[in-house]
Amino acid sequence: MFHNKILPIASLGVGVVIGATYREWLHSSSKLYLPTVSAAASSTSTPSLTDTAVALTLSPSKRSAEIMKYGHPGSDIKSYENFVLSYDRRNRNANWVFEHLTPDLLHIKDTDRNKSTFLEDPSIHYFFRSTNDDYKGSGYDRGHLAAARNHRHSQRALDQTFFLTNVAPQVGSGFNRGIWNNLEKYVRAKVRKNRNVYVCTGPLYLPRKESDGKLYVKYEVIGRNHVAVPTHFFKVALIEDINGDFELLSFVLPNQAMPDNTPLKNFMVPVDSIEKAAGLLLFNSLPKAKLKSINGNKI
Amino acid sequence: MFHNKILPIASLGVGVVIGATYREWLHSSSKLYLPTVSAAASSTSTPSLTDTAVALTLSPSKRSAEIMKYGHPGSDIKSYENFVLSYDRRNRNANWVFEHLTPDLLHIKDTDRNKSTFLEDPSIHYFFRSTNDDYKGSGYDRGHLAAARNHRHSQRALDQTFFLTNVAPQVGSGFNRGIWNNLEKYVRAKVRKNRNVYVCTGPLYLPRKESDGKLYVKYEVIGRNHVAVPTHFFKVALIEDINGDFELLSFVLPNQAMPDNTPLKNFMVPVDSIEKAAGLLLFNSLPKAKLKSINGNKI
Repeated sequence: MFHNKILPIASLGVGVVIGATYREWLHSSSKLYLPTVSAAASSTSTPSLTDTAVALTLSPSKRSAEIMKYGHPGSDIKSYENFVLSYDRRNRNANWVFEHLTPDLLHIKDTDRNKSTFLEDPSIHYFFRSTNDDYKGSGYDRGHLAAARNHRHSQRALDQTFFLTNVAPQVGSGFNRGIWNNLEKYVRAKVRKNRNVYVCTGPLYLPRKESDGKLYVKYEVIGRNHVAVPTHFFKVALIEDINGDFELLSFVLPNQAMPDNTPLKNFMVPVDSIEKAAGLLLFNSLPKAKLKSINGNKI
Repeated sequence: MFHNKILPIASLGVGVVIGATYREWLHSSSKLYLPTVSAAASSTSTPSLTDTAVALTLSPSKRSAEIMKYGHPGSDIKSYENFVLSYDRRNRNANWVFEHLTPDLLHIKDTDRNKSTFLEDPSIHYFFRSTNDDYKGSGYDRGHLAAARNHRHSQRALDQTFFLTNVAPQVGSGFNRGIWNNLEKYVRAKVRKNRNVYVCTGPLYLPRKESDGKLYVKYEVIGRNHVAVPTHFFKVALIEDINGDFELLSFVLPNQAMPDNTPLKNFMVPVDSIEKAAGLLLFNSLPKAKLKSINGNKI
């Protein structure tokens, strides 16, 4: 349904690229390289590509069908009524969840959150599915990625946010029931005052330096299905105002208890740092001329 | 190019499934559930699905195009001359590499490994690419996933195995230059005596129990691009003999030095344990009737 575009080789070249989209502009601009969340995001240099490397790149061929004759290992992108999700089968977590929110969609219709229950997602092969049992006794909340309250215009859409594909192990008190909830409310307040809000939410597994001076990624896994407990979560919101201008907000929050009144701006980070740490490109087809503000700074 | 099939809901139901493919049979059989590599693989129960969950599953819709209006976060499946690769942008490693080997392809033509050099892969966005610099001073070898010697029939195919997309940080002495090389040689010996061999190779990040009784995944990341150092590697080979019958061999090796003469059979594991730990389904369209042996055991 959604296919990855292979970037034209020319766009990966050395030097400044002046392009039509927000993405090309962002990658060619130096001013956005603020201090970043993790060292993963600190590499800002464009790559040096040899002619040899470029000459070796390939397009798909009949040969690949022969190589994969007895089955493709698979990947999971799932479209629900009101959100789209990429599933990380190895970590039994979403890679990302995308929402498109409008003021109309936030109107609560004849829906009832108490009718919704957390469910295994049958669209995921059972080898890779997280279950309610995995969470039992783990000490973690089943935290929504696409927030339930963003989808109260339809019972079906609301119910679908309770699929465990849209859920991650989150620290409960002080995070899921605190600052994370504050962030969700903040995004909804933005939705009510604007025309369209596009939100991408997901887990992160960020490295830390240990006493041997090396960097390690470390995270707990819970239950018999080894559901990964992310170290952090990100949320990136692209906000279109009534004039058709855009604002970009990007947050990374550690999966840990903190005071509920911690200012959300403390968690704002350059979107590039999220992209590099998560392995995603976010809103890369937004026309640059339409982007007027990033994390509260006019551009 | 390759699309994931969403499994029919019926195939996910409770109980024994008698089907046409190796995959359906494997999942319905109890005899394969030998002791497994990690607890991740120990869950053999089929899921309990409520009618509610099944009713909520969705097919793609126009809505998803609206939600993703300003860009899709992307994924990377790459077809090279003689192998196919899925790239894990977050870990700057392959998810898996697929090869199809035949006796003919192993004939060394006018190719020279000394002409090949390790190269950044320009088909990967530079945010997510591993580089030679990342490996420098790390103490790890640049270990091939699709083995270079499997692709000596063409200089281009050989050169492409040196793209860093096909490379992972491997312990050098005692692993990459020892037991891992033995495994590659073993597979090539199988190729020479049979008709077709399909090989899937990739990294694993397996959890370990720590002193607090909880399970953690922990792995080093190297270089400014935070290239993950896998804890283990898997290799699964599907071997078609001259009669058209199939043998399946599946191995998991820890990324650590060990005696070169360690028997390879010590590393044989049920393929299910690899599938669950890696988040992959392997050779799931092989007809069951054609599979005659698994890890040396006739069936």
